[in-house]
Amino acid sequence: MGAGAVGCYYGAMLARAGHKVTLIGRAQHVEAVQRSGLRLQTADFDQQIQLNASSEPDAVRGAQIILFSVKSTDTEAAGNALAPYVERNTAIFTLQNGVDNAERLAATLGREVIPAVVYVAVEMAGPGHVRHHGRGELVIGPSESSRAIVAAFAAAGVPVEISSNVAGALWAKLIVNCAYNALSAITQLPYGRLVQGAGVPAVMDDVVDECLAVALALKVQVPGNMHEAVRRLAQTMPAQYSSTAQDLARKKTTEIDHLNGFVVRKGEALGVRTPVNHTLLSLVKALESRHG
Amino acid sequence: MGAGAVGCYYGAMLARAGHKVTLIGRAQHVEAVQRSGLRLQTADFDQQIQLNASSEPDAVRGAQIILFSVKSTDTEAAGNALAPYVERNTAIFTLQNGVDNAERLAATLGREVIPAVVYVAVEMAGPGHVRHHGRGELVIGPSESSRAIVAAFAAAGVPVEISSNVAGALWAKLIVNCAYNALSAITQLPYGRLVQGAGVPAVMDDVVDECLAVALALKVQVPGNMHEAVRRLAQTMPAQYSSTAQDLARKKTTEIDHLNGFVVRKGEALGVRTPVNHTLLSLVKALESRHG
Repeated sequence: MGAGAVGCYYGAMLARAGHKVTLIGRAQHVEAVQRSGLRLQTADFDQQIQLNASSEPDAVRGAQIILFSVKSTDTEAAGNALAPYVERNTAIFTLQNGVDNAERLAATLGREVIPAVVYVAVEMAGPGHVRHHGRGELVIGPSESSRAIVAAFAAAGVPVEISSNVAGALWAKLIVNCAYNALSAITQLPYGRLVQGAGVPAVMDDVVDECLAVALALKVQVPGNMHEAVRRLAQTMPAQYSSTAQDLARKKTTEIDHLNGFVVRKGEALGVRTPVNHTLLSLVKALESRHG
Repeated sequence: MGAGAVGCYYGAMLARAGHKVTLIGRAQHVEAVQRSGLRLQTADFDQQIQLNASSEPDAVRGAQIILFSVKSTDTEAAGNALAPYVERNTAIFTLQNGVDNAERLAATLGREVIPAVVYVAVEMAGPGHVRHHGRGELVIGPSESSRAIVAAFAAAGVPVEISSNVAGALWAKLIVNCAYNALSAITQLPYGRLVQGAGVPAVMDDVVDECLAVALALKVQVPGNMHEAVRRLAQTMPAQYSSTAQDLARKKTTEIDHLNGFVVRKGEALGVRTPVNHTLLSLVKALESRHG
């Protein structure tokens, strides 16, 4: 559900391994997939993969698992659209940015939803065409179906790890996104050139410190050294523009409310000051408002 | 010296009252003024005013007063260019943004320089054409020549006040500039639409608080309620874009190092945290860097 780059990539990998997969997404994309399959382009192969596609949420009927990969801004709306068709035994995983999507979808559907952390660099190169730039592993929370999922994905070439600290892993990813997404969006610079900006690494340090203070107040254990992880990303992906930068350039609504905006809201609720995250949030919102 | 909008306005007002004025500025502008005078367009009149113009700093020879109105980034360079030609009895006033220009020019010239605070809305509408949008008063520091200046300017229709707290007035103006200039530049929004942005007034409040903390550490008495003054500006000048926004749009170097950058440097030296000013500074510098 949500046939963006992430949904298409994992759907295609499963279909390639022989699983019956249906992509649910926008009409333009669905038509392209129905016409000639999904083109998955990676460093190792470039294949046209046949799978089902639909723009109707009732296509989830009978699914063993649902990979839920809509934008964080659309979680409730997409959840409500699915609700009438989700069956009792279906396992549902959120493959989304932000840390509270599984919780929000669980509240919308009134049932268990398993959070997943996605580590993959993919982009839509056009309708029915997804391009893979690297990685692809998932970290998921423990559940009745998690072990079966690990086996099925492993057979499809997708490494999945079960972690008892998915919240920490989601926060670690959130913090990296908080450090890069807004800054890359506001300046419309790729990560490599962005961090060469005088003062930019120090701004990122401030963002990370504020996020860690909020995580600490929430008693979330964030693994690893986040300052180090943030510094590393610009080295490994110097040409990358953040999804927020891409959304802003295309005049689309960004996920900023679920990135820096989430940290600001939690900080306010917990009495933790987050002035730099708040500044970045406000600037992205102001830039969004220019699109009317 | 520095025939931008501010220098042209005060020069033209003095010339209009019968004073002998020479504008020193860039060749393109100087040629236009030499050819057909300076067009000064206000709500009350629209006049072609005859005055001298030169692109050579030796044109200051014999001046009774020098109004120094180059960009804050050019203070030292312009001071050094003037130095050989400045006479002992000449009174020198800085009519610039930023709070330390008089001090910097005094250090460059090795002599007294009197700071002035400029309250005027003017813009260059083209070479040899300045447009006045409102106000025009000056506040200057006490000096031997300050009383004579007040009289001469008053006769020319320019209200000048002598204040023993020019530093406080310069800081008050700096703080308003810190609140608006970078935000308007980054978003390319005029003040009215800018402050409608969700969170933007709160960002401005953070900027003001940080500036006031630095001013306090410097023992500068900032007059009035700065939060109130900042809120008022968007109401009185809703269509205004900051000079920083205009510079950035024209791919020119901005004065940001002398606005938020000044506050950040002073804060660092004094141990006062200025994360929001630092974020705005870094973003403007990153946007400048996009111009190569």
